[in-house]
Amino acid sequence: MYQPVSSSAAAVIALLTDFGLDDNYVGVMKGVMSGIASGVPFIDLTHKIPPQDVIAGAWVLGTGYHYFPQGSVFVCVVDPGVGSERAPIALQAGGWYFVGPDNGLFHFVLADQTAKAVVRLTNRAYHLPNVSSTFQGRDIFAPVAAHIAAGQQLHELGEMIQADSLQQLELQQPLIKNDRIESEIIYIDQFGNLISSISLNLLPDFFERSGVRLLLAGKQLMITERRRFFAAPGNAQEPFLYVDSSGYIGIAIRNGSAARELNIQRGEAVTLLFNNR
Amino acid sequence: MYQPVSSSAAAVIALLTDFGLDDNYVGVMKGVMSGIASGVPFIDLTHKIPPQDVIAGAWVLGTGYHYFPQGSVFVCVVDPGVGSERAPIALQAGGWYFVGPDNGLFHFVLADQTAKAVVRLTNRAYHLPNVSSTFQGRDIFAPVAAHIAAGQQLHELGEMIQADSLQQLELQQPLIKNDRIESEIIYIDQFGNLISSISLNLLPDFFERSGVRLLLAGKQLMITERRRFFAAPGNAQEPFLYVDSSGYIGIAIRNGSAARELNIQRGEAVTLLFNNR
Amino acid sequence: MYQPVSSSAAAVIALLTDFGLDDNYVGVMKGVMSGIASGVPFIDLTHKIPPQDVIAGAWVLGTGYHYFPQGSVFVCVVDPGVGSERAPIALQAGGWYFVGPDNGLFHFVLADQTAKAVVRLTNRAYHLPNVSSTFQGRDIFAPVAAHIAAGQQLHELGEMIQADSLQQLELQQPLIKNDRIESEIIYIDQFGNLISSISLNLLPDFFERSGVRLLLAGKQLMITERRRFFAAPGNAQEPFLYVDSSGYIGIAIRNGSAARELNIQRGEAVTLLFNNR
Repeated sequence: MYQPVSSSAAAVIALLTDFGLDDNYVGVMKGVMSGIASGVPFIDLTHKIPPQDVIAGAWVLGTGYHYFPQGSVFVCVVDPGVGSERAPIALQAGGWYFVGPDNGLFHFVLADQTAKAVVRLTNRAYHLPNVSSTFQGRDIFAPVAAHIAAGQQLHELGEMIQADSLQQLELQQPLIKNDRIESEIIYIDQFGNLISSISLNLLPDFFERSGVRLLLAGKQLMITERRRFFAAPGNAQEPFLYVDSSGYIGIAIRNGSAARELNIQRGEAVTLLFNNR
Repeated sequence: MYQPVSSSAAAVIALLTDFGLDDNYVGVMKGVMSGIASGVPFIDLTHKIPPQDVIAGAWVLGTGYHYFPQGSVFVCVVDPGVGSERAPIALQAGGWYFVGPDNGLFHFVLADQTAKAVVRLTNRAYHLPNVSSTFQGRDIFAPVAAHIAAGQQLHELGEMIQADSLQQLELQQPLIKNDRIESEIIYIDQFGNLISSISLNLLPDFFERSGVRLLLAGKQLMITERRRFFAAPGNAQEPFLYVDSSGYIGIAIRNGSAARELNIQRGEAVTLLFNNR
Repeated sequence: MYQPVSSSAAAVIALLTDFGLDDNYVGVMKGVMSGIASGVPFIDLTHKIPPQDVIAGAWVLGTGYHYFPQGSVFVCVVDPGVGSERAPIALQAGGWYFVGPDNGLFHFVLADQTAKAVVRLTNRAYHLPNVSSTFQGRDIFAPVAAHIAAGQQLHELGEMIQADSLQQLELQQPLIKNDRIESEIIYIDQFGNLISSISLNLLPDFFERSGVRLLLAGKQLMITERRRFFAAPGNAQEPFLYVDSSGYIGIAIRNGSAARELNIQRGEAVTLLFNNR
């Protein structure tokens, strides 16, 4: 996993939400932050997480955060429970900071990195004066993220809690057997590429080993072709296996959407089979 | 209404247009501005105002600007009359600056804030050398906004005019009676939530008062349920009343689009009824 | 063609891709760059180039780059051949820098500007440590662009090559005859306006000259009306000729999409006819 080595780079504030770009929600969050952490640059990770899809948000964050300089602050709002009892939190994991709801959104980050500190955001001095029950991205998460970027210590933001008390996502872990790995489709990108939760690390000789094939079980569909890149020779309409840019095994169709053409949704069971000499 | 108190934060340039994000229009405006106001950060309020919908643009601006630090400059281009006789203007209202066409786009800002200065942008020294008749966002509004962010005084940009000569939007003001408030749907967000122009300020005990209900008149539809937040208990398919994040009474359906499912468009008449003890 | 005169403005990094905004691809590229060229601002030219449409990408770049301050670096990724033999390159043209695949993406820039230096990006010291075969935008183009913005010289990035060895797009040049110019539709914007490759420079008295009309040949459709701007008087449903904001002759319908209503695609032949006194 690539990580920039230098931590001397100025921090950025990165945003990930399901707010879309049609309304002023994202712009207003940046407005609030620019009044607190003047001059800190904003980078949009994406605002097009499918509405309330915490798993997709967690995946997009988990495959992206480590490309940012250490010291960066991620403000993440995919929050179906906004206004309810779920806790607003901030945490440090590795050299990065994360702010958002405690609903599993940081699942993949915390699978990679040890949490150094976790805080429930109970100190209202770092929120906007009036906190709405429908837009805590603006009223709690944005100002807290900006205060962290401006140098505030986590323990000043509220009450410290244990990392192991945080909400987890219920996901099937890849199950590794003698001649197969059983797992599921964990993410579908905007081009309809199907990404499994099987990391190339689990089968580093994926491209060299003989007999590798993938069974999409609910569809009883076996895919045998492997390609190193999209423009590799081969039938443009045929589904093939590849390694996506985050290092996970995926299924694509060069000139089309594998999700649509194979009629697959997230959670579909996959079995990666291989010859075990 | 939240406003950041400090005005010492560095100014930002915020953009609001109906240009969308598919072409290079917005990027080119920022390119022009970055050549004039080097280092001033850009924040997109949104570029997805429905094409030529001045009322929607005015609403999105009016509910968002005051979250930005004072000194910020808003360059706003929703401009069906580009190239015609409508005037390009800049103005200061409260501690913020606004640049765009004189067509009502600043209506809600000027309902909140007193205009301190208004100028018609007649001084071509602050425009690009060649002004097209189809893209004045690039040729007039962007360079003027950047010059303001770089410290130029408004009176140098052209001829000062009176604020009361500016174009107004023709909108129904909420009509307050003994046991009801009559108004209209003023905005529909991207999730299909219907926002009325009835501010919570007009009925501060909205959640506590008995007998509150809303009549969507053209549809003869009465909505009685009130919820403080989207995840509050209740039927996921049922429309309910809530207070949107800008403080206006709205109608939502938790797992759907109220606009689509109730078949409502902007301008639909609404009557908020309540028991008057 | 407008160009900012000052080159003292701080450089920006401008991005143009076909990655869309739904996934984290663009955000991750910016994360990588912010770890190398700390503090250099990012401007999105667009990320909505139709997937793998190199001609559209080249056009959007070619009509936009010269509005940016000299010294700006453009990182451009519309790259159907990613992972194959096509070369990754960087070049200086005029006062601007460009990074991307050698597939014609810089065609229109190089039609305007003399290339001062072109380099194949063979020096892996300026790439990420692990270069994937599916996301070289992140692994090669982003870090190289950031190193250029941070002051790295082009000749350090790899092996210098000749500009005339670069890939060209195969496009019909406008063919100028006595009473006509034959050309094609080169771009269709998101509003469905049809832009031809006939620059106003080829017929500077376009609006004054008598008998100007345009034949959409495949459709045998003649358009005679000329308008200087969209709000000019005339039938709202009628197609008309105008000069688009980049200085090319286009076809629009005020309240609709000319592409859809006339059923035209890019590459459609056009003939501009005029009276030759």
